Amino acid sequence: MRQKLNIGLFGYGVVGESLYHVLKHSKTVDASVCKICVKDKDKKRSLTQDKFTYDKEDIINNKDINLVVELIDDADEAYDIVKSCLENQKSVVSGNKKMLAHHLNELIELQEQTGASLLYDASACGSIPIIRNIEEYYDNDLLKSVTGILNGSSNYILSKIFNENSDYDSALKKAQQLGFAESNPSLDVDGFDSLYKLIIIATHALGTFVNPDKVFNYGISNIQESDIRFATEKGFKIKLVAQLIKLDDNSFTMFVIPRLVKPEKYIYNVEDEYNGVVIQGEFYDKQFMFGKGAGGFPTGSAVLSDITACSHNYKYEYKKQKYFKQLEYRADHEIEIYLRYNSIVDFSLFEFSCISEKYSGKDYSYVIGKIKLSNLLKLKVVLPKLNIFLCYIRN
Amino acid sequence: MRQKLNIGLFGYGVVGESLYHVLKHSKTVDASVCKICVKDKDKKRSLTQDKFTYDKEDIINNKDINLVVELIDDADEAYDIVKSCLENQKSVVSGNKKMLAHHLNELIELQEQTGASLLYDASACGSIPIIRNIEEYYDNDLLKSVTGILNGSSNYILSKIFNENSDYDSALKKAQQLGFAESNPSLDVDGFDSLYKLIIIATHALGTFVNPDKVFNYGISNIQESDIRFATEKGFKIKLVAQLIKLDDNSFTMFVIPRLVKPEKYIYNVEDEYNGVVIQGEFYDKQFMFGKGAGGFPTGSAVLSDITACSHNYKYEYKKQKYFKQLEYRADHEIEIYLRYNSIVDFSLFEFSCISEKYSGKDYSYVIGKIKLSNLLKLKVVLPKLNIFLCYIRN
Repeated sequence: MRQKLNIGLFGYGVVGESLYHVLKHSKTVDASVCKICVKDKDKKRSLTQDKFTYDKEDIINNKDINLVVELIDDADEAYDIVKSCLENQKSVVSGNKKMLAHHLNELIELQEQTGASLLYDASACGSIPIIRNIEEYYDNDLLKSVTGILNGSSNYILSKIFNENSDYDSALKKAQQLGFAESNPSLDVDGFDSLYKLIIIATHALGTFVNPDKVFNYGISNIQESDIRFATEKGFKIKLVAQLIKLDDNSFTMFVIPRLVKPEKYIYNVEDEYNGVVIQGEFYDKQFMFGKGAGGFPTGSAVLSDITACSHNYKYEYKKQKYFKQLEYRADHEIEIYLRYNSIVDFSLFEFSCISEKYSGKDYSYVIGKIKLSNLLKLKVVLPKLNIFLCYIRN
Repeated sequence: MRQKLNIGLFGYGVVGESLYHVLKHSKTVDASVCKICVKDKDKKRSLTQDKFTYDKEDIINNKDINLVVELIDDADEAYDIVKSCLENQKSVVSGNKKMLAHHLNELIELQEQTGASLLYDASACGSIPIIRNIEEYYDNDLLKSVTGILNGSSNYILSKIFNENSDYDSALKKAQQLGFAESNPSLDVDGFDSLYKLIIIATHALGTFVNPDKVFNYGISNIQESDIRFATEKGFKIKLVAQLIKLDDNSFTMFVIPRLVKPEKYIYNVEDEYNGVVIQGEFYDKQFMFGKGAGGFPTGSAVLSDITACSHNYKYEYKKQKYFKQLEYRADHEIEIYLRYNSIVDFSLFEFSCISEKYSGKDYSYVIGKIKLSNLLKLKVVLPKLNIFLCYIRN
């Protein structure tokens, strides 16, 4: 049973404009964009003026509109919009991972109360249908871990560095020129974007919503020549990896951190703006999904898939939350890290539980040791400001 | 809303037995296997006698059973079982690709009439949820092609040949020992298994069911040392590839044939019993899904996902068939092939439209030329019996 969709669109940036064009090409959904709400009155647009409004109420209170597609940058504003729409029984498609990672639990409740649907597969891995697969297919309790490159922009930068000997700054600039990077690059390169996606994935994969503040994320903005050399000499690449691991029947952990990746790993060959996710289960072993994780058209087409799903009245069921004992999130899990430093560092800060290797040289020094995630978490705000680089080696 | 499932199981081979164990470990579904129908009364079983029956009516007419899982080898018998179950309003999960590839259209109609559901994601790529993804996610009309290694057994054989210098016969024996091969190896190595899966995929991807007899399939059983050398000297591997290609807005083609694969291709690194599928769309570009395609546990867990879906009352919607103009299947598409021969061959048989390369040597000879699929199709039964080898080079 298909429903005719009259869409109200918030935002007309790279993804919004791509979506408009993807929608025009699609004969799949019986959908038309009625109104587009934007902020900037002076910006030149590719459509005629009458398509646009600057007042969000024109969409939220428009009775003809039965689906809202929210594609704006500002997470707080996005939250207000999504909340108001659901309260008005309007279904919503959103791509705003930051907003979702902070309010998902509440928005799940609001869906329950109002019956309206909120879909956001486009928020997690661009064109890879990761949420829907976890929700619909890998929905048995055999899941052991999800490991992924979830941020196209930082992966693009690392690819340029490791494959083309580019330096960090020019690689970042290139990513921004190509439209892969978020408007605030720190979201990408410091691992926040990956973290937000991981929070969303965990909510579906294990049924537990965790506030992003409670999860350790660390990015690639401090990477140096010496770190790159350390990795390449060993035949590794460095990738920014998000991971959730089921620790036992009752608990799990998760984190985002750059990682030394061996050539045998599936994610080793995930390059440029691509994302790749490995889902590991007890019986199906490993599943690997791979696709474009950034850029207007891949994300636009992911939004389109969410829209199509809406036209078929699809809703996430949040099966893990509803039908299972929720797993407890734990940050006391220990990981082994490489920590590079250039000047003297107070190691007592880190509370390593043991150190297995130490190297000191004229240009740089490093230690390799085991540390609890909870210790790293305490330093989450400080770490990016220190002239050091952390990299996951193994559990 | 979850439904308690009382399962009647047909077949207790590798997959059936794995499923039984996977089900025992799963707390996801409220399901128990009430009865298992098997053929051989004398075979030793790992369960007590009272679980088994030898009369299919004990399951079909059992009012307590609300889901039938069909995992037997015989396609005709499987068809009778599935048909009777659907007619009795019992939902069915099946892994029988041969049966589905021959009767899917009819079984779609029967589902419509009776309201019972038939799920068969496990039939297509072992643990990769390809049908459900095509049905639910890549369900817009932007799909351009699906290209995949769909048969784990023949891929295992080719991996042993290309990576470990194994010969064909010992690689086949190894695959059989590991339980990857179908009981009749020709199904795997001559491309029938891949063909059946392709037929199922096409029905969901494009909405058009095509009788398998009308589609060209050719396998790897005639591969020789000279073919392997021809490929490796050029830096290629040979893979058995199934492909469907949308030709224009109205038509598509499909075929199964060994293929020279360059290292840049995603499927180049799909080795051993793994399957890999590339879905290409106009806007999301390429998506790659990868996972175990053979073996009891991966297939058992895929069947489990179908069972879980049934407990949530999931049904395939066959959206492409319902909501779109069906595309016409065409076999007049031209492909370029390598044809190796050892003794004199009557080339007029093949009706090449042009030949671009010819090589003749003491041990073997080959031609490279363009040929219509329809011409190959006429020779479908004869080709495997000739001492030649065909390999797709490019469109």
